[in-house]
Amino acid sequence: MSSSFGRLFVVTTFGESHGPGVGVVIDGMPPGIPIEISEIQHELDRRRPGQSAITTQRKEADQVEVISGLFEGVTLGTPIAMLVRNTDAQSKDYDALKNVFRPGHADYVYFQKYGVRDHRGGGRSSGRETVGRVAAGALAKKALDSVGVTVVGGTVQVGAVKAVRRDWEQVEKNPVRAPDARAAEEMERAIAEARDRQDSIGGVVEIVARGVPPGWGDPTMAKLDAALGAAMLSIPATKGVEIGGGFGMCELHGSQTNDVFDGQRFLTNFAGGISGGISNGAEVVVRVAVRPATSIGKPQTAATQEGGTTTIEIKGRHDPCICPRVVPVAESMMALVLMDAWLRQRALRGERG
Amino acid sequence: MSSSFGRLFVVTTFGESHGPGVGVVIDGMPPGIPIEISEIQHELDRRRPGQSAITTQRKEADQVEVISGLFEGVTLGTPIAMLVRNTDAQSKDYDALKNVFRPGHADYVYFQKYGVRDHRGGGRSSGRETVGRVAAGALAKKALDSVGVTVVGGTVQVGAVKAVRRDWEQVEKNPVRAPDARAAEEMERAIAEARDRQDSIGGVVEIVARGVPPGWGDPTMAKLDAALGAAMLSIPATKGVEIGGGFGMCELHGSQTNDVFDGQRFLTNFAGGISGGISNGAEVVVRVAVRPATSIGKPQTAATQEGGTTTIEIKGRHDPCICPRVVPVAESMMALVLMDAWLRQRALRGERG
Amino acid sequence: MSSSFGRLFVVTTFGESHGPGVGVVIDGMPPGIPIEISEIQHELDRRRPGQSAITTQRKEADQVEVISGLFEGVTLGTPIAMLVRNTDAQSKDYDALKNVFRPGHADYVYFQKYGVRDHRGGGRSSGRETVGRVAAGALAKKALDSVGVTVVGGTVQVGAVKAVRRDWEQVEKNPVRAPDARAAEEMERAIAEARDRQDSIGGVVEIVARGVPPGWGDPTMAKLDAALGAAMLSIPATKGVEIGGGFGMCELHGSQTNDVFDGQRFLTNFAGGISGGISNGAEVVVRVAVRPATSIGKPQTAATQEGGTTTIEIKGRHDPCICPRVVPVAESMMALVLMDAWLRQRALRGERG
Amino acid sequence: MSSSFGRLFVVTTFGESHGPGVGVVIDGMPPGIPIEISEIQHELDRRRPGQSAITTQRKEADQVEVISGLFEGVTLGTPIAMLVRNTDAQSKDYDALKNVFRPGHADYVYFQKYGVRDHRGGGRSSGRETVGRVAAGALAKKALDSVGVTVVGGTVQVGAVKAVRRDWEQVEKNPVRAPDARAAEEMERAIAEARDRQDSIGGVVEIVARGVPPGWGDPTMAKLDAALGAAMLSIPATKGVEIGGGFGMCELHGSQTNDVFDGQRFLTNFAGGISGGISNGAEVVVRVAVRPATSIGKPQTAATQEGGTTTIEIKGRHDPCICPRVVPVAESMMALVLMDAWLRQRALRGERG
Repeated sequence: MSSSFGRLFVVTTFGESHGPGVGVVIDGMPPGIPIEISEIQHELDRRRPGQSAITTQRKEADQVEVISGLFEGVTLGTPIAMLVRNTDAQSKDYDALKNVFRPGHADYVYFQKYGVRDHRGGGRSSGRETVGRVAAGALAKKALDSVGVTVVGGTVQVGAVKAVRRDWEQVEKNPVRAPDARAAEEMERAIAEARDRQDSIGGVVEIVARGVPPGWGDPTMAKLDAALGAAMLSIPATKGVEIGGGFGMCELHGSQTNDVFDGQRFLTNFAGGISGGISNGAEVVVRVAVRPATSIGKPQTAATQEGGTTTIEIKGRHDPCICPRVVPVAESMMALVLMDAWLRQRALRGERG
Repeated sequence: MSSSFGRLFVVTTFGESHGPGVGVVIDGMPPGIPIEISEIQHELDRRRPGQSAITTQRKEADQVEVISGLFEGVTLGTPIAMLVRNTDAQSKDYDALKNVFRPGHADYVYFQKYGVRDHRGGGRSSGRETVGRVAAGALAKKALDSVGVTVVGGTVQVGAVKAVRRDWEQVEKNPVRAPDARAAEEMERAIAEARDRQDSIGGVVEIVARGVPPGWGDPTMAKLDAALGAAMLSIPATKGVEIGGGFGMCELHGSQTNDVFDGQRFLTNFAGGISGGISNGAEVVVRVAVRPATSIGKPQTAATQEGGTTTIEIKGRHDPCICPRVVPVAESMMALVLMDAWLRQRALRGERG
Repeated sequence: MSSSFGRLFVVTTFGESHGPGVGVVIDGMPPGIPIEISEIQHELDRRRPGQSAITTQRKEADQVEVISGLFEGVTLGTPIAMLVRNTDAQSKDYDALKNVFRPGHADYVYFQKYGVRDHRGGGRSSGRETVGRVAAGALAKKALDSVGVTVVGGTVQVGAVKAVRRDWEQVEKNPVRAPDARAAEEMERAIAEARDRQDSIGGVVEIVARGVPPGWGDPTMAKLDAALGAAMLSIPATKGVEIGGGFGMCELHGSQTNDVFDGQRFLTNFAGGISGGISNGAEVVVRVAVRPATSIGKPQTAATQEGGTTTIEIKGRHDPCICPRVVPVAESMMALVLMDAWLRQRALRGERG
Repeated sequence: MSSSFGRLFVVTTFGESHGPGVGVVIDGMPPGIPIEISEIQHELDRRRPGQSAITTQRKEADQVEVISGLFEGVTLGTPIAMLVRNTDAQSKDYDALKNVFRPGHADYVYFQKYGVRDHRGGGRSSGRETVGRVAAGALAKKALDSVGVTVVGGTVQVGAVKAVRRDWEQVEKNPVRAPDARAAEEMERAIAEARDRQDSIGGVVEIVARGVPPGWGDPTMAKLDAALGAAMLSIPATKGVEIGGGFGMCELHGSQTNDVFDGQRFLTNFAGGISGGISNGAEVVVRVAVRPATSIGKPQTAATQEGGTTTIEIKGRHDPCICPRVVPVAESMMALVLMDAWLRQRALRGERG
């Protein structure tokens, strides 16, 4: 149950980074949605390693195979299972780390939790698990598209560099995936500097959903805010999430942050498109805090399984900033949340939903 | 399903603010835990209105009645239902607002979602729903206590005023519930000023859990971070959540934020006690962004159900800053998350969990 | 979670038989359904004790109070909590049984499971828990009615006496609730005989749903058959369930039991209205095996909490045959299953569902 | 969600019979359980076609590949995904049936439910889906074994022939899988006769779990009986389930069916090992009604997608009696139910569970 997300649109991922493969099962996909494998592959290509000089140089083709749930190009309404084989798993790289708990990694807690662990590449805790999420996200986006909902996203901060503009057309035109061409250059520079110092750097990713009608989401425990909070904080390396005005509103007054609704539209969007847990028709806006990648080349003190400490330098091919590759994952999670909300509203009210 | 929280320790709230009452059902409480009604009442008293000059002057006794699941002072392991009657429901106050969508409130989205709504006092969207959460939290805290886990919390920011110290003993000694006596005075002043201007002000609440052993929480979708994100963002008026270093880490490097573990303990706590979604033995630290209360006396433009607009001044007795009353609610949600994680770990590994 | 039924239409019961009360929370009720309290009370009156000479002579008014989710006579779409106070709880009757495990009862297993138990009247294991189910069933029936689905049921066997006819109009005209006036008299006699011998007798209850359109229910794990199996076997004292031809088909051949569909309707109904787990448009037919009531006056050997045995005669006011009172409970469970299936199909396909 | 079974030990199957493959994801498997692939394969071999003259002559190797969750021969505690490729999918056989709804099959209801369907071999409604259940069952059995719980099962009735003995050692020694060597011969004859007449025949499968300690299962909605009811009625072609004395108890009196417990053990087992929904320490006994296979060679009238009727003779290689192949599936479902109950009890009470 810990590997599933959603109540009506249920997405379950599986796989270790150095096992035979990773994948996903989607249960609850509406039938009759046309989808090409290439559309799924396109999203996976946005997530995969080796895309630019500022992402990890690992080579994973990440070719997706659809095992079930599609027939003659449309969804059947039955579970859609997808599998991506692990091909560039250089497990030997990890032999030296077999009994070491890498700083900032999940090695120690996995050992405490399970008493056994696949030490190779983080096993289940690897970011590679998000392959399944992105494959599912591709299908969710396709289905949402049929009701006029689209999801965009980008890197809006790296270190101290913040994007000023939100020009989503720019996102795929720079390796940082920033919606601001000028800021993108500065961000790229900041990432390259960190990489060259064998270090990593943090940032912020923003995801926006357009076309969400009023009425999606639930009050109380299953607020849309809450679902987004869970969705985003389930992505590796994320440590914060804010909706609309977010933390910035803490310093303001109600007379400033109450969005005025003129009966047609909201003149401001401090609520981030969600009031009382339910979409209000404005853009749904979420920002996610991405911590600096924990895999760095710099020498670090690390505890060992035997109870002592050692010094390690993490070799290999790691991302100096995870933001560019978090973007498609966070978009996918937004899409999963909205799919679930859409289907739930449809259950509650019928076609109106 | 939208009113339930948790998978093994399932808490379901019910009730509208101006209906007969509000309450909660807890399913999954371990048997044999001793609990006094007064312990539950104590927590409810921390949440109830009318506690000080800077909270709403409404008078709700909020007397809890336990309907089931307790016998001779201990839990039976069966569902615990608790009921609190609504007594100060001045529904007439809301007659004028029957066809008005109050700015920042959920009135409009409820109408869009359900096509029908109880307009009196926000109905189900009222903060009054959290009565059930706090009652459940009292029981969760009691059970967690039996395994050495304690939860504390306080207001750490109001407007521009930030708490510098974390002296949790101070929290119940000032009306702001700040863990810093000096900052508390400034915060109180900021709240009083907002109140006197018929306005409201935002803030930040911090919750800390101590004694959580390594191994609680799950990887991937059900990360402890994700559960906390959902928990906190399901509280009315919250619009952001961060774990440990949170958004502050976005400007830092991995060499700064990788917590060093010396085999015994963590020397820093950027991870906020959670690595890879699983508790690592350090304090679990969460901060929640609380927006300024949406009910303000200042004149505001509001849309009407008929499609036009009007100007309203929200009369009545409202909180100029919600933080002091959010503290026990957020503590409760932390306790619910940890109960669930504890029971799940116990399922996975047995008593060790 | 063990006290909840359903995924989209979630019904959670609470309460011990000799505690303050029993009740239910329904989460997932569509908004805008008109419902009178008297309609709920009517169903509870069909379930309550003291209806005739062949049911227990306990006196419980079983007055329902709706705590939430209704406003001006219609459902709000929010959780509906209902409470029934326990008034005829003669707890002293049970003092002698405090350390005795009554044969056939759940006393022993509760003690083993929880280590603590409310011994009075079976506590949570009492049939009194079904009050909540029937209250929820009343609402489910009302909602199903809006899409043309109706649920009927009756006692079709008591001991060796079987109903030959299915005249559902007869059900409320005889104390056995049999759909066959002549058989009803024989059944009544069989029950009276058992009662006079301080014994009890078993029987079979049949529930039929009409107007279910094709397409409700799910394949594989969540088949409509499976949901009905869970629903019926969750009712106290039931030990078997069969759909359509049921166990009788084991002796037949496929050429006999394959229902012929002429494109308009099914000429036979061995499938009981469900093919491959999904409704096929024919009547949904379920039969439930109800064991003889375990509370009997005859002297019986019983184990004690201390590990020995004793002889007990269960005093008090018990049902010699539970079937008449199981009927409204089983109807309710059928209604809960169909509500869930309806809403799920609506989620999958929209209004068509 | 419709393809998942269980709450803590969650088993999700996927796959169509003529798509690339079928499989399963198990989430919630305790870590550290040793398991050999050959143990899983062994169970799959008991389910696969072509085992004897009285099962279908299709040839499916049903080779299982474990994709995740195992490392160096033990479970990791992470999701275990398993895949079996479809190799003998003779899809052309089904071209003639593309627009025909086979009698007794799910063709019609799938079309009604989804509006689209994979007509080849029943698609998702095929018995082939149970491959995933059996693979999961192999793991569940292994884990249960570690706490002394074993599951056995066999065919106890075919047509009018009933097994008299319960000699479970006999089960794998005859093609019918009957626990009674003499009855097995008669059953085999009855099946061969049905086959030779291009017909099929029904039967009853019994599953028994030994070593289940008292205290597993839950009261009310999640009774062990209810879980078994759902489990068994989710198996294709099952239309009835009974626990212990089952339907036979309907003709008896309470003085006959109240199992006497002498403080050490139960002298009879009318309750089938379950009292009030909770295991009582006796053997858990379930019987499942298996209808005659719907695929028969005899000419039958069938409706077409266009609304008319036609006459069909189902060619191909089908099981004249499904019971022998249902046995491993029903054993698996029993094992899944018990795994879930075990883990839940462990959550509730710790290691004792």
